[in-house]
Amino acid sequence: MGPAADPGQRNITWHAARLTRQERWSSLGSTGGTVWFTGLSGSGKSTLAAAVELRLIKEGRAAYRLDGDNLRSGLNADLDFTRSGREENIRRVAEVACLFADAGVITLVALISPYREARDSARRQHDSAGLPFVEVHMTAPVEVCATRDPKGLYARARTGAIAAFTGLDDPYEPPLEPELQLSPDVPLDDAVERVLRCLSERALLARAN
Amino acid sequence: MGPAADPGQRNITWHAARLTRQERWSSLGSTGGTVWFTGLSGSGKSTLAAAVELRLIKEGRAAYRLDGDNLRSGLNADLDFTRSGREENIRRVAEVACLFADAGVITLVALISPYREARDSARRQHDSAGLPFVEVHMTAPVEVCATRDPKGLYARARTGAIAAFTGLDDPYEPPLEPELQLSPDVPLDDAVERVLRCLSERALLARAN
Repeated sequence: MGPAADPGQRNITWHAARLTRQERWSSLGSTGGTVWFTGLSGSGKSTLAAAVELRLIKEGRAAYRLDGDNLRSGLNADLDFTRSGREENIRRVAEVACLFADAGVITLVALISPYREARDSARRQHDSAGLPFVEVHMTAPVEVCATRDPKGLYARARTGAIAAFTGLDDPYEPPLEPELQLSPDVPLDDAVERVLRCLSERALLARAN
Repeated sequence: MGPAADPGQRNITWHAARLTRQERWSSLGSTGGTVWFTGLSGSGKSTLAAAVELRLIKEGRAAYRLDGDNLRSGLNADLDFTRSGREENIRRVAEVACLFADAGVITLVALISPYREARDSARRQHDSAGLPFVEVHMTAPVEVCATRDPKGLYARARTGAIAAFTGLDDPYEPPLEPELQLSPDVPLDDAVERVLRCLSERALLARAN
């Protein structure tokens, strides 16, 4: 990811890869980068990320989905849903996404990621590593998401069983300049095409060589 | 990595991938798995992991190196070198290695990982996810590593500038049944061949289809 300062004298030596990133990408025939899906619970992030992943894999591309819920049961199992817990959740997912992108994988992150600053920080992590970052905002409003309520979470939140629920009693700060916005009336297949077009325009679907 | 219990009612829904792992691996033409290099600082873990990575990439395989030092400046920048900090460091690296292996990548982890229980836990994380795990013990004793001292850390530790240094005043618990042991008198090229043979014997170099 690049040499990092070690202000705390933590006895870390950064290992320059013998391989350049371009050599690795060329070998895989791929270009790494991150697509970051943000939006309320029920806005369709995971569904779309899975559909895009399926499409890319079927085309023989290296792709992998990092789903916020799944990571909460593994890497981030120690974190809660407080603001600091959410920020650390996002920080770690962004770091892992950078690793995957560096490895040459198109990484599909589906994460509510409600705070603008935390998402911008994820973008900066990618920028400073020279890795593409595409933010996709699923704009479905809370009324639509609460009606869909695929996990039954809005119903539980309204009974008070879940505190600090994004969109109800915890804030969601929409992106100001996302690469793509998708409203809930866009059919899934069209949404997949729009994401792919967005990647293509950024040369993310070029076969590295 | 699989459905997890949610004892704390943390409102997490596990997303079944639409893709099977086998479909993903077949598409990439690869088989995922983790090679875990453990040993003292200066025992040659990172050098060997980098050489194996280079070899695999040159053969057109998906491979990626997770180096303990590099991760300490990113994903694990918040952790210290106390026992709990080291254990959490290893836990996170193992989780990330599982994700990479699941994605179809041969993942090369170079990490002192001094505690047997923490390494065994990493192995269990892989086992429970159905992912191959190969432990490689770099057996160079502390006298050899301190003479090599590529990062100048042993010299600093002896002056007292570094506390709790593995092999000096912090324990290193050697693996009891590693898949491979490599002593410091094995030339690098031979060590690479032995790792590849070890992978091949476990069908990790098979082209998935």
